[in-house]
Amino acid sequence: MLLGIVGGTGAMGSSLALRLSSHGHRILLGSRNADKAKEVAASLADLKKSGAGAIDGVTNLEAAEGEMVFITAPFEGVQELVKELSVNLSGKVVVSLVNALVKVGSEMQPLTLARGSVAQSIQAILPASLVVSGLHHVAAKDLAKVDSPMDVDVLLCSDYPDGKDAVTGLLGAIPGIRILDGGSLSSSGAIEAMTAVLINLNIKYKTRTALRITGIKER
Amino acid sequence: MLLGIVGGTGAMGSSLALRLSSHGHRILLGSRNADKAKEVAASLADLKKSGAGAIDGVTNLEAAEGEMVFITAPFEGVQELVKELSVNLSGKVVVSLVNALVKVGSEMQPLTLARGSVAQSIQAILPASLVVSGLHHVAAKDLAKVDSPMDVDVLLCSDYPDGKDAVTGLLGAIPGIRILDGGSLSSSGAIEAMTAVLINLNIKYKTRTALRITGIKER
Repeated sequence: MLLGIVGGTGAMGSSLALRLSSHGHRILLGSRNADKAKEVAASLADLKKSGAGAIDGVTNLEAAEGEMVFITAPFEGVQELVKELSVNLSGKVVVSLVNALVKVGSEMQPLTLARGSVAQSIQAILPASLVVSGLHHVAAKDLAKVDSPMDVDVLLCSDYPDGKDAVTGLLGAIPGIRILDGGSLSSSGAIEAMTAVLINLNIKYKTRTALRITGIKER
Repeated sequence: MLLGIVGGTGAMGSSLALRLSSHGHRILLGSRNADKAKEVAASLADLKKSGAGAIDGVTNLEAAEGEMVFITAPFEGVQELVKELSVNLSGKVVVSLVNALVKVGSEMQPLTLARGSVAQSIQAILPASLVVSGLHHVAAKDLAKVDSPMDVDVLLCSDYPDGKDAVTGLLGAIPGIRILDGGSLSSSGAIEAMTAVLINLNIKYKTRTALRITGIKER
């Protein structure tokens, strides 16, 4: 599959690119600055295994030409950014990994948004796209270790079941990721905000936490 | 310890009363309607083991005379309720288990509150109390099985570390509950809202879910 990653040069975008390319997908790694994207893509090429798909550094507009597009840009400016890409993203599954968090003292706090969540804000800007919210609690470092299985539950929220199915098909192939149906996009605010709680636990307990939902039998 | 449970005649209040009394604590089970409280307390008496503390059905005002007071009233009206009890609750640790959720179609959705969370709303009404937010993700049914260990992480949030310490001392004695420091009351909104996500998962997967935080070593 040809996958776009918008705002992909950070830790999460790069790690996601590595992991998905290891499953043979071709990645369009986007940035506002195409030179930066090419540089990051080149550094990732050194880490790839044989059989992995290509990772190409491109502009965000080019990344939006992927068949499915992940948004890993920082919260600041992300709404303007997806608006610029709306034509390219039309009719596609768009996966938002974006959290709206601020550091207050030594603590992360979730921002309250007028639309309830970042994913809902993006859906409002992209009415012709199928926005799916997910992967908020996944550690980039774990994604980047492509030879190690993950150990995490991924809650997917969307107003479009077809969108959730498509993302489940793609991410469910990654060993150790269990995909759970988190319901409509109304649940995304709670899940995005929990990211702040997990980061605070990481700081407090000097570790890397993740969520596991107990009580659901393996399917 | 003498423990109050305000709005305690529902499933969560009753289950908490049973579990805490099984550790020898004496419980003041409060309700707006003292007759109702007496009735529920009498029904719980039949379930108690020898050595358990007494459970007395009382008014909410009397329940607020406990050394530590749990609030398990429904969200609707809880702010007016704690305001009426503010003198009795002054100087005490007040534990809020309250979630602000609404059912929309077949899905639970968290409400956005002006203070960010129910616990913060209660803290604003009770400036002389040490409000602690916790136990939101604990299933009443599991609490009520006093002979079975729990299997859940409890995130405590408060602006008062002394309050968290007191609650940790009390609840940490329950087998299978791991208490984690969830930070300041700023995190309570995320944790309260996650309750809606867990309820939706319960409905979707026909089960009883809870949260486990991975990556934190047992202390």
